[in-house]
Formats: sequence, structure tokens, C-alpha cells
Amino acid sequence: MLLNCDLGEGFGVWKMGDDSAVMPLIDQANIACGFHAGDFATMQNSVRLAKAHGVMIGAHPSYPDLYGFGRRDMHFSADELRAQLLYQIGALDAICHAEQVPLAYVKPHGALYNAMQRDDELFTVVVRTLAELNRGRPQPLKLMTLAKMQRGEVMEIAAQYDVDLLFEAFADRRYESSGQLRSRQFEGAVLETPEQIVAQALAFARGESISSYDGGAILLPADTLCVHGDNPQALAAVKAIRAELS
Amino acid sequence: MLLNCDLGEGFGVWKMGDDSAVMPLIDQANIACGFHAGDFATMQNSVRLAKAHGVMIGAHPSYPDLYGFGRRDMHFSADELRAQLLYQIGALDAICHAEQVPLAYVKPHGALYNAMQRDDELFTVVVRTLAELNRGRPQPLKLMTLAKMQRGEVMEIAAQYDVDLLFEAFADRRYESSGQLRSRQFEGAVLETPEQIVAQALAFARGESISSYDGGAILLPADTLCVHGDNPQALAAVKAIRAELS
Amino acid sequence: MLLNCDLGEGFGVWKMGDDSAVMPLIDQANIACGFHAGDFATMQNSVRLAKAHGVMIGAHPSYPDLYGFGRRDMHFSADELRAQLLYQIGALDAICHAEQVPLAYVKPHGALYNAMQRDDELFTVVVRTLAELNRGRPQPLKLMTLAKMQRGEVMEIAAQYDVDLLFEAFADRRYESSGQLRSRQFEGAVLETPEQIVAQALAFARGESISSYDGGAILLPADTLCVHGDNPQALAAVKAIRAELS
Amino acid sequence: MLLNCDLGEGFGVWKMGDDSAVMPLIDQANIACGFHAGDFATMQNSVRLAKAHGVMIGAHPSYPDLYGFGRRDMHFSADELRAQLLYQIGALDAICHAEQVPLAYVKPHGALYNAMQRDDELFTVVVRTLAELNRGRPQPLKLMTLAKMQRGEVMEIAAQYDVDLLFEAFADRRYESSGQLRSRQFEGAVLETPEQIVAQALAFARGESISSYDGGAILLPADTLCVHGDNPQALAAVKAIRAELS
Repeated sequence: MLLNCDLGEGFGVWKMGDDSAVMPLIDQANIACGFHAGDFATMQNSVRLAKAHGVMIGAHPSYPDLYGFGRRDMHFSADELRAQLLYQIGALDAICHAEQVPLAYVKPHGALYNAMQRDDELFTVVVRTLAELNRGRPQPLKLMTLAKMQRGEVMEIAAQYDVDLLFEAFADRRYESSGQLRSRQFEGAVLETPEQIVAQALAFARGESISSYDGGAILLPADTLCVHGDNPQALAAVKAIRAELS
Repeated sequence: MLLNCDLGEGFGVWKMGDDSAVMPLIDQANIACGFHAGDFATMQNSVRLAKAHGVMIGAHPSYPDLYGFGRRDMHFSADELRAQLLYQIGALDAICHAEQVPLAYVKPHGALYNAMQRDDELFTVVVRTLAELNRGRPQPLKLMTLAKMQRGEVMEIAAQYDVDLLFEAFADRRYESSGQLRSRQFEGAVLETPEQIVAQALAFARGESISSYDGGAILLPADTLCVHGDNPQALAAVKAIRAELS
Repeated sequence: MLLNCDLGEGFGVWKMGDDSAVMPLIDQANIACGFHAGDFATMQNSVRLAKAHGVMIGAHPSYPDLYGFGRRDMHFSADELRAQLLYQIGALDAICHAEQVPLAYVKPHGALYNAMQRDDELFTVVVRTLAELNRGRPQPLKLMTLAKMQRGEVMEIAAQYDVDLLFEAFADRRYESSGQLRSRQFEGAVLETPEQIVAQALAFARGESISSYDGGAILLPADTLCVHGDNPQALAAVKAIRAELS
Repeated sequence: MLLNCDLGEGFGVWKMGDDSAVMPLIDQANIACGFHAGDFATMQNSVRLAKAHGVMIGAHPSYPDLYGFGRRDMHFSADELRAQLLYQIGALDAICHAEQVPLAYVKPHGALYNAMQRDDELFTVVVRTLAELNRGRPQPLKLMTLAKMQRGEVMEIAAQYDVDLLFEAFADRRYESSGQLRSRQFEGAVLETPEQIVAQALAFARGESISSYDGGAILLPADTLCVHGDNPQALAAVKAIRAELS
């Protein structure tokens, strides 16, 4: 079980989270590509930091919405979406190339990530764009997406384009019995205690079922766990998970 | 002698120049990369248009200054400049890759281009960044820069990093006896008649000397001629040059 | 019957429409405020041009979406929307003040304009924001909005906040029998011939009914006609309307 | 002696400094206007916070440089600079008007502030722009600028346009014997201990001379002291100054 974290989410003089504290604890760094956060210089620094810690690098592309941090729904045509993805992934890929470290995967951000979960057409655009980038690429880009109970459809789309998926689960979020994340609009969306978080992380790591919000057991096979390092409690939880997983 | 032109210089709904009219006439398209002009969708369209006409594609990166069209001097550290170049070149490179057409060269834009001509340190940052991108690249990126009378220094820098240079001259601009472009601040900076423009283009093409502003003959060896397609007269001049060169 | 036109819709080096050609023909200039088009310098030039022709000035605020020209639906809280409106209207108001010409009204742009037509809550936010600006203002700002068959509701909201409405109709667009504009997604949304456009303009001007898309007669009382000056045909139509109205 | 502080310097999701901690301690809030920091919603919140604490509000306009936080030198024509100032000041003024609290003064930010100190022509553009805004304004806007030993020239320019100046000094910075701030490029630019900071603040408050970097005594009459609240030590220093001044 790998640990992934969204990083490089500052812009210009503004910082977000303590990247240097969380980087030593994770396996995969999802680096913002300038559309919701992360300017060119911030990206370069993030790539260097990830390389120094031997952390795999993923592109974290977004809708273009700096003010809204990519969390706002926006409509784009399939062709515009493809161009946005290529632009952001290519920008990070070149920085990785110059730093002599591979770009390994792509994890869409925020509203784009959520839209991709509920709209197979949009999911297909993302997969197809990665397939176009993978043509002739020695180390093909994988796509990180949400672990689901019904994963047949997305696996079929990915197989059709020969793109590998990385299913991610959340250590610190509660799930509905449907296997979906409980919305942050409702209470109980986030696990409160470090013990709960570590227990859920371990269950994912061992391939065991977890407790859904209404108490039932659900099984969500996952390849990687999304963790957060933006506050001291989150960081402590990551340390505890890391300790248990090693 | 090749013909190159700055293209893809719209942004969102805004257009600049008539790209579809000039594309069939040129050999090399310098495509804006989003920092002074050219959003992701515009770039994608420009790459498709260049491919359709068999035109070589170059990245046209700039300082980040959309309002000022990249024409304003801005100071960046060498490290920031490297990151800016990687970001923009990588973005266009990914679009080219997806469209299955190679990215062949880089021509910095506007104030960055001018700064690079007068500051060897900055020129070195650009060359070194290209060398970092060229590592392991099947078809290395060349650097397009201004044809000069004293080209020893820039050729030495480029040779040190093993980057090929493409020297460009201007068909429609007057040169000082020093071999520098006559500044647009002064009268006589631009050739007026199509005959003058075609004559100067032919002189460059044949490796002959041209007449400087004060009437002397200067020799400026060039690989490519920069032409413009943003108005009917400019387009007519390009057509005339094309006809003479074929 | 007044004629209004969206103007100042360039950005930086990019131009849109021929403002100097259309300005002498209109009564009200809706000037973009920087969020979908129109930077600070463009706004200043537009205000000067309007003043030179004795044209009333209106603010044309938008969602913040330069790439999408404000045509994309975006969600903002009521409080964010208020802040956006105040920011843009205030920016133009200060330029008008310095140029010693009054800012007379506000016409929201694009997706914001459309959202305001179908969502009374959003319409109320706009009206209330204007009322807050009108407090102590010698010449209160009016709100330009779409002429409708059922205008009771919006008139009630406006009356509640003591904001005057300017109902605008379109000379060159076809209406459905419901009184709504026929969507541009369908054929027949735009009147083709200058004769049709002038005839519809005159009907609006005389307070007569017009022909809807399905042939019935509908009555849409209007205070101002929206015209366009972005191409020679449009400009010719405006000239013809102007000639008929005088 | 008043205390002023730069505030509202977040953007979107990003925060800078602890505005709610420093606001109760100061007399004048210099609020960023969107060009180097501070979007529309952040500005609205800053105005509300200042109003709640009875703090005077000033506009803190900047060159348009979000990535560089307005600290980079940029060249604009006098006309462009005027438009930039009007745009930003007007935007904040409208928010103040809607919140029923006056906008009292203007303090240019960063590179613009520094350029204004060394370039009388640019200073004149700023003063003249404020004069244009002050025409017919019940409570004229003042201009906050750096306290100097030779203040005759700037006072003359301000008097010519009938604009009141507020001279500001820095409690936590060392001055050269010329009366200029010691550049941050050199050691000794910043006072280290709270005692030193409070002592210098008190000297300014009492109209007494302070010690320059090379030990001499210099006299810099000031109306307001610029303080910072972006870290706990800075905040502690402000509290100590506030306690001594009351």
C-alpha cells in the first residue's frame, strides 16, 4: 500500500501545507500544475524535493481556476479538456525531464476529479489523452482515480486504451455503504481520531473491509492511500500510518 | 532559406493575425505557449494547422505577461527563467506528442528574446535549459536566435552545451551598420515597399550582403527569415518572397 | 428608444469590434470591466471615447473568466457575487469620475446576465448591490435587464430596493412565443436581412408587437435596443436603425 | 502617531498574515486591491474587519503582478499607471461605500511604492490621479508615502495638486544617515530586538531623532508607523508599541 499526497499547492509568495514535512513520509507526490495552484517555480521546487526523497511524481492537473482552487464545476468541451490536460502534464513532464526524474502518473484535481468519477465520457477523455501521451513513452503514465465498489466500467475503459489505473482510497474520510465518499456537506464525513484513521488505513492496506457510515462492512480494493499534510494533526496521522505500514 | 512566422497569438475569443492564410506559405511556425498569448486550446489548434501544412513547429515562450504581450522587460532569477521555459516548452511538446508531430525548436519571444541578445548570461540559461531537455531526446531542440555580425560568442556557448542554433534575419526590417536591427523607436526601422522586402529576403537567401540604414553593405548569414502575416500587405510580401524562393 | 452596445471588449493587445465606428451611432455604451474583457487601459480609452461622443456609460461586469469571455456558467455565493459586482463597477466608476463623466447604469454580461434572468435570487443580489451603491449617490445607477412578457416579478424586486430598470430588447434576434430569445443553439435565432432587423427595431421603438419565431405576435415593451458593431453587416444594420429612429 | 499595516494580502484559498490578530492593534489598514494580492472577496472581508475595529481604510494598489506580489519593477506609461490606480482604488472604494465606511487614503505597494520615491514624475502621476478622484469627493483621499529628510519636493508636488500627504516611517527597519531605508540586501536592515523596535517607534512618536545605521542621529518627521503582523514576533512588537503609545 502506497501513500500519496497533494503537494506544491502554493502560488507565488503564498504557501499551502508543509511539503518538506510530509514528503519524507509518502510514496507519491501529486504536484499541482499551475491551473489551480503551483506556478512554474513552485513546480520546479516540488519536483526537486520529491526527487531528493525518492518519491514518485504525479501530475495533478485541474480546471483553470486559480481563485477557486479548481474546486468549482466548469464546463469544457472534450477537445478543450484534452488540451488542458496535455498542457499541464507536459509542463510538469518537462520539469521532471530536466531534473532527470520520471513523471509516473496523473491524478486529476478537485472538480475535475469529481466530474470524472460521475461522468464516464469525461473519464474516457482523460484516459484517451493519457494513451496519446503514452504512445512511444518508455514508462507509460498511469491514472490515479477513486477506489469504487463497481469498478468494472472504468477498468474496461482503461483497458480499451491500455492505461493502467491506480485506485486510491482515503484514510481519513468516511464512506457510505454505496462505497462513495460521504460528502463533506454532512457531519461524519471525516474521521476524527488518529486511531480511527490508522485503523482504516491498515484495513485498506491489508485488503480488509472497512466500516461504512451506517456501520456496514464494505470492501474497496485500493492501490494507494491519499493522506494530507496541511496541519499538524494530519501530519501526525500520516506518521502513525507510515509507522504501521513499514 | 526557410521562412518562420509567429503564430497562435490569440487568447480565448481573441484572434491575432490570419494563421490559416500564412501557414501554407511558411516552413516554421513559432507557436505562443500561454504566457504572452496562446491558451491551451489555441495551441492545440495551431499545432493541428501546422501539421496539416507540414510546417515545422517551434515553441515561442515568453515572460508571463498576458496584458503586455511579453514585450515588457521583467526580471527573473536564472532558476525562475529555467522553470518558465521548461513549463511552456513542455506544455507545447505534450500537445505535439499527442498530435504525433515533433517539436523541433525554440524561439524566445519579445522582451525575453531581446534580453537574450544583449545578455550572455541569460542566453546561457536558455541554451542550458534546452540542453537539459535534449538529454535522451531523439530529435534535439534547436534554438532560434538573431543573426549577428559577431556570432562567435553565442556559437561558443551553444557549442559548449551541444545545442544547434538557427540564425534568423528579418525580411522587412532595416539593419544598422553594426548588424543590429534598427529600433522601432526611430523612423526607417521598417522597409516600406514589397520590392524592398523581397530584395532583402533574396539577398539573405543567397548569402549576399544587404544595405544597412546608413547605406553600407553588411553581411549577416542567416538560416531562416522571420515574416509576418498579421495584415494583408505583410501577407502579400510573404507570398512574393515565397514565390521568389521556390 | 435608445441603442446600447457592448464595447471595450479587447484585452491588452487584442481588439474586438470597431468601437470607434459604432460609438457615434449609439446612446449607451456597456463597457467591459476586466473580468471577461477590458483591462484598465482599455476601459480608460473606452470611457474617453464614450465621453467624446456624448454616449451614456454603463458598467458591463462579468464572472471572472477571461479565457471563456464570461460565457461559462460559474457558481459563486451571493456574497462573492456582491463583491465581484462592487469591484468591477467601482473600478469603472473611478475611471468615469476622473474623466468627469457619470456612470449611469449596470448591465451584467454573458453567463451572469443569463443566470440573472432565470434565477430571481441572483437577480435580487444584483439589485441589492446596486441599491447599496446608490446610497447617497447623486445619480443612482439603473439596471439594464432583458425585456420580458412577465415582468411583474423583476419589477417588484427592483421597486423593493428602489432601483430603476432599463428593459432591453434585441433588434437582430428572434423571439419565441414565450417572449424569450430563441437560443443560438437552434436555427433561426438570428434575423438575417437588414430589412428584418430594421423592421423589428422600429416595432420595438413604436411599442408595437413583433413576430415570434412561430409567427405569432408578441408585445415586449423595451427602453433600449441592444445592437452589435463587431462586423460590417452589423454596423450597417445599426446605421439603418439609427437613420430610421431619428 | 498612528500605526498602519498592510492587510488583506491573501488570494483565493491562500492566506497571508493574521489579519484578525493585528487589526485590533492598528489605526490604518492598507488593503490590497487585487493586482498583487487580495481578490474581490478577500477585499470585502478585509473592509468588514477594519470597519468592525474602527480602523481607517486605505487602498494599497500595485503593479499587476500576482506571481511576483507586486515586488518586481515593471514599466508602464503615465496613462497606464493612472488607469491602474483608478481601477484598483475605485474597486476598493465601491466595496467601502457598500459597507458604509469611508476610504481614507492610498498607499502604493511594493515596486510601485519604491519607484514613486525615486522618480518625481511617477510620484506626480500618483498625486494627480488622486487629485482627479478628489474632485467633488466629500472626504479627499490622502497619499501615504515614505518619510524623508528632504521632503520639500514631494510636498511641493502634493501642494500643487492639493493632496494631503501622510509620511510613514518604519518601526522595525534601520535607516541610513541619508534618511533612506537600509536595503534588505545588506545586513543590519532590520532591527532585531523588540526593545530596539519599541524604542525607535517611540522616538518617531515623540518627534525625536533616531539612530541611523552608522550611529548618527537623524530626524524624520512621520505621521504614521508601518508595522507588520505576519509572524508572532512582529505581532508582539506591535503590541508593545501599541502599549507604549497609549
